[in-house]
Amino acid sequence: MSLEAFFKPAAVAVIGASTNPEKLGYAVLDNLVNGGYYADGRQVYPINPGAESILGLRAYPAVTDVEDPIDLAVIVIPYPFVPDALRTCGQKNIPAVIVISAGFREAGMEGLERERELIDIAEEYGIRLIGPNCLGVIDTFTPMNASFSADMPPRGPMGFMSQSGALGTAILDWAQAGRLGLSKFVSLGNKADVDEIDLLGAWQNDDTSKVLLCYIEGLNDGQEFIRVARNVTKTKPIVALKSGVTQAGSRAVSSHTGSLAGSEQAYQAAFRQAGVIRAQSLQDLFDYAIAFGYLPELRGDRIAIVTNAGGPGILATDAIERSGLQLSRFESTVIQALEEFLPDAASAANPVDVLGDARADRYRFALEKVAKDPNVDGVLVILTPQAMTEIVETAQVIAEIAAEVEIPVLGCFMGEARVEAGAKVLEAHNVPNFGFPERAAMVLEAMIRFRRHKEKPLPTYESFEVDKQTVQEIIDSVLSEGRVSIGDAEARSILTAYGLTIPPSELAESADQAVDIANEMGYPVVLKIASPDILHKTDVGGVKVNLETPTDVRDAFDLITYRAQRYLPEARIWGCLVQKMVPEGLEVLIGMNRDPQFGPLITFGLGGIYVEILKDVSFRVAPFSAAEARQMIKEIRASALLEGVRGKPPVDQDILVDAILRIAQLVQDFPIIAELDINPFIVYEEGQGGIAIDMRLILESGEKSKHHSENVDSGSSS
Amino acid sequence: MSLEAFFKPAAVAVIGASTNPEKLGYAVLDNLVNGGYYADGRQVYPINPGAESILGLRAYPAVTDVEDPIDLAVIVIPYPFVPDALRTCGQKNIPAVIVISAGFREAGMEGLERERELIDIAEEYGIRLIGPNCLGVIDTFTPMNASFSADMPPRGPMGFMSQSGALGTAILDWAQAGRLGLSKFVSLGNKADVDEIDLLGAWQNDDTSKVLLCYIEGLNDGQEFIRVARNVTKTKPIVALKSGVTQAGSRAVSSHTGSLAGSEQAYQAAFRQAGVIRAQSLQDLFDYAIAFGYLPELRGDRIAIVTNAGGPGILATDAIERSGLQLSRFESTVIQALEEFLPDAASAANPVDVLGDARADRYRFALEKVAKDPNVDGVLVILTPQAMTEIVETAQVIAEIAAEVEIPVLGCFMGEARVEAGAKVLEAHNVPNFGFPERAAMVLEAMIRFRRHKEKPLPTYESFEVDKQTVQEIIDSVLSEGRVSIGDAEARSILTAYGLTIPPSELAESADQAVDIANEMGYPVVLKIASPDILHKTDVGGVKVNLETPTDVRDAFDLITYRAQRYLPEARIWGCLVQKMVPEGLEVLIGMNRDPQFGPLITFGLGGIYVEILKDVSFRVAPFSAAEARQMIKEIRASALLEGVRGKPPVDQDILVDAILRIAQLVQDFPIIAELDINPFIVYEEGQGGIAIDMRLILESGEKSKHHSENVDSGSSS
Repeated sequence: MSLEAFFKPAAVAVIGASTNPEKLGYAVLDNLVNGGYYADGRQVYPINPGAESILGLRAYPAVTDVEDPIDLAVIVIPYPFVPDALRTCGQKNIPAVIVISAGFREAGMEGLERERELIDIAEEYGIRLIGPNCLGVIDTFTPMNASFSADMPPRGPMGFMSQSGALGTAILDWAQAGRLGLSKFVSLGNKADVDEIDLLGAWQNDDTSKVLLCYIEGLNDGQEFIRVARNVTKTKPIVALKSGVTQAGSRAVSSHTGSLAGSEQAYQAAFRQAGVIRAQSLQDLFDYAIAFGYLPELRGDRIAIVTNAGGPGILATDAIERSGLQLSRFESTVIQALEEFLPDAASAANPVDVLGDARADRYRFALEKVAKDPNVDGVLVILTPQAMTEIVETAQVIAEIAAEVEIPVLGCFMGEARVEAGAKVLEAHNVPNFGFPERAAMVLEAMIRFRRHKEKPLPTYESFEVDKQTVQEIIDSVLSEGRVSIGDAEARSILTAYGLTIPPSELAESADQAVDIANEMGYPVVLKIASPDILHKTDVGGVKVNLETPTDVRDAFDLITYRAQRYLPEARIWGCLVQKMVPEGLEVLIGMNRDPQFGPLITFGLGGIYVEILKDVSFRVAPFSAAEARQMIKEIRASALLEGVRGKPPVDQDILVDAILRIAQLVQDFPIIAELDINPFIVYEEGQGGIAIDMRLILESGEKSKHHSENVDSGSSS
Repeated sequence: MSLEAFFKPAAVAVIGASTNPEKLGYAVLDNLVNGGYYADGRQVYPINPGAESILGLRAYPAVTDVEDPIDLAVIVIPYPFVPDALRTCGQKNIPAVIVISAGFREAGMEGLERERELIDIAEEYGIRLIGPNCLGVIDTFTPMNASFSADMPPRGPMGFMSQSGALGTAILDWAQAGRLGLSKFVSLGNKADVDEIDLLGAWQNDDTSKVLLCYIEGLNDGQEFIRVARNVTKTKPIVALKSGVTQAGSRAVSSHTGSLAGSEQAYQAAFRQAGVIRAQSLQDLFDYAIAFGYLPELRGDRIAIVTNAGGPGILATDAIERSGLQLSRFESTVIQALEEFLPDAASAANPVDVLGDARADRYRFALEKVAKDPNVDGVLVILTPQAMTEIVETAQVIAEIAAEVEIPVLGCFMGEARVEAGAKVLEAHNVPNFGFPERAAMVLEAMIRFRRHKEKPLPTYESFEVDKQTVQEIIDSVLSEGRVSIGDAEARSILTAYGLTIPPSELAESADQAVDIANEMGYPVVLKIASPDILHKTDVGGVKVNLETPTDVRDAFDLITYRAQRYLPEARIWGCLVQKMVPEGLEVLIGMNRDPQFGPLITFGLGGIYVEILKDVSFRVAPFSAAEARQMIKEIRASALLEGVRGKPPVDQDILVDAILRIAQLVQDFPIIAELDINPFIVYEEGQGGIAIDMRLILESGEKSKHHSENVDSGSSS
């Protein structure tokens, strides 16, 4: 069902409409009646069994007493009465209900029970529900204020959704001060039904929302979020602020809402895969919102700076370069024109310094020239309030030229008291103005990142032909034995079944057999303890490498099995795995952890100290495309090692992409795999492939899978 | 000479005082006469040969015509007349002169000549000079406005100096809007004489300046800056914004002022060594200024958060943890009291959530409890404007309690329109208020960093007994041969002379001699080509390692010398160095580059790909203490490798400290050393020392040293 009824209803009922101006039920009704909605001739029905009329409208005892159809009901009554009220909405066939009332999941176990009851009722009647425990919904274009917020924010291009109601009130206050213009505002509350994913999908084709803003504490379904957001960002930007990213922050989310925050790495990977612009702070969220809301798209990364002051010009140049953008190189005709028009001491090269005594006309000349230069994708205009500076006039010039050209023009009016009037002119013409050049550079960087994401095709997922059956049998057998971790031979079978290359090897149950196998295989060989109960083989001296003779093999077999028995008398010892020594190559790690919110999170990094000490790893949420896997490989800091350094040839990146994708397929095919590490995977030079040497794999225990499913949905916060 | 006359003069002359209100000479006089200075009974003398009186004051043709003494002259006349005017100031014994006039170094070669003339005159008469090409000087406590800025900024605890005049005007405008309170303001202009270093020294004991703020493009003397700033930061914070840090930014500085910006690494090291808080942006500079200006010192890193909203509380928790601070754990009595007083749904643990319906009294109770808890070093109070929120009253409560306690209390009133009145109350009581919790966390982090720096003792420099004579002789001989790089044998002598251990080795001029040496030394050995003309020995196949027999040695000698002659027929070949193979250990790099502004910049890192690919290195400007060298070692990302991982013992960090300090001493003793790399230096386990295997060392060529001295002083910008 579409969510249209929440934003453009033809008739709204307020269940709990009150005659007492101190009550929320009065505030909501008042906002609907006097906030522009009712004035447009649409119907509002106060529902209150004890009143004849409220705010001049006839009141009804229940929605079922209203004869005409109702599209939207807002419930503002104490929590014990909410389920029954919701049921009457169902009986009346109301498709959309906002439950403002608190006292549900956020209030502990009993509240959670009550919330489940709401969900059941909504499902029974096919009602879509926003809340409970929320501020309400606003659509400035309808216009409709179905919330208890006193202010109707100014109209604008930003659709905003917040899990936190309080943050919502702050946002509305900023909007009220003229900083933001909103199209839609939704306080999601506990997200019993409608959540971020629903709204993103619904707003994707909403022409009034040019940029979608989300404050997120946790997601109900990480995989679905990526799927939906990835589609939305093909046409419009999503900016998200995710809180609870540090350990302490995550504890705060958890103690506040009882939901797991999900890992920071998973969110980072998911946002990147979905093309979601991540705001690191609330301030970033606002600045991104303004830039995406009001500016034309940034088509390239070449920025021009026009300034009346050298120092700030340098600060801006630093910021542009630090953000990975570049300064435009102007056409020679542009430089010539600037040189002719500007005073001698001015700089005609980028950054263009029109000098401290520049009046509006000098800004106009310079700005027109550079904004129309085809080498310029965006312009940052810096103004400091000097003695001869025409602040308001210059702002008007900027607004005029910004309206003429099809590239983003941003203002940076530095100062406050004297520049305020100019800043207001820019604001009035929707030219984003930043007090500091660094913030302007930050938004430009996000804009080019969005543009590049948008231009990329939607990912296509490869599917390899694999032997699922074998893996299923191994897993069944492991589980039937009450184990959660697999042995070496099992790991080898799984890897082979999914098409990864492993070194030739065979299980030897005795020293004699080990020697026979080695003789046939060819020396040197490696011996490894084979036991389902020994996970970290090297810790118990269970690995001997570089065995060159039959004697070496015999000695190693006896030593390894003796040691294993001594250290772990309970362990089942199957013997030793005899494995052919593989040639040296670059060691990498391919791993997976199952994130509670996003599912399979694939890790890639170089082996050994790179992972352990330097934490030099990259992440992606499966599924992902081959292009994304390749990007993942390039993302690690030490990626130059893969390209070949010190005279070494580049490594076989194709085999890495292949192995990563096969592992991604494996963990998607078998959600019961909780953790997995191939370490090391040895990769050889280009065209020479790679070999998976060792794999650790843990299945979810019953306890753990219960834990996971409990955290699939997350609560909201005030 | 003290700089007192610039800030508290008893009499000021304005050379170029004008009767025309459009002229700067009028503005400066007007600011002195009507800006509070003259009203206090101090003397102002307009100097203008064509006027009888200006602004009601008798005008004089020249300063020499004034009978009474003059402490300060402000020169505002066209540049051709400035030198003569400065001379008359000298004749009148005026100790301090501000030259506002432009047309000097910033105007090209001729201007540079004129500026040198000013410097000569000032030196001749013992005049201290601010400018030329500047806005002027303001002291709000005198009060005195000796600038052409129309506004006298509000009084406050911040001493501000700027190399950029335009940035100065923006600062004054922010101050005017009530954001900043200034004690002193100096526009440094071209820094012909007085520079940042002079002002930092002068303001160190200025009671009206609690925090010193600098906008820096380049420094005249990096070493002196560190010395002076390090002393100042023992008593008061310095916050610096350095521009021109990126390549493009540095080019912009250079094209703007003709001065080199110095390397980013050198500034970073220097600021850290001097305890200077570095602002990454103008906004950071302001926020730090407000925090250091108005808050008591932060004595520890345990922060309490009080909030009326869960979401923002989580954002703040994230920000606190990300900044390396921690959340306080309250006394159990505090938690108990909070639990008793606050509603059930509130959170008594940190972050304390007083809930959305909290009025001022609930904030008061919670705030008083946590602010007086001995486990709390600082408090962040978050407010979102909800229906029942008493915004102004809560601000008053915060201000009241902030005044009572001796720990920093910061406000974070989120929103704008509705919270503005509350924000103003906080501002009026000097409680810093940040619109976003992330910014509050950022300033708290800087405060604890400053506190920790302050508590450290001033560094003491070790001096080793070394054989300077030998090194001097080697350098003389290298130079006398017209070389700038040294050979292997020379490198070995230099290392030995400065007390570093090197592997036993000896020069062999023939294969026979090489075998004799190896026989005596014991196998295995290494052979290296010995030639003053071959820098990168491995590139020409000039190194053979792990030679185990006399035959190996003989073959290697012939091969190496043959190859060297073939590749570089011009090279002088001295033979081969026979060197004992040293045991394996951890390879590190110790290097030095001479920075144009700071001098010897010492580098430390792990050898090989850590330096080449991961750029994992740390920097210090010499001289530095043993403690700083130790810190430098710990700073690299891979420092865990030095502590011992995977069962390996920790390495001998003492020998690393020792080697770094000896190299620092070497490059200070011999400023002619331009570059130096010991790579690898092999370090063994604790107590086992380390060995310098190879050193590359380049002396400054005549051309290069000329280049350097030209860049010792840097210009200023508008």
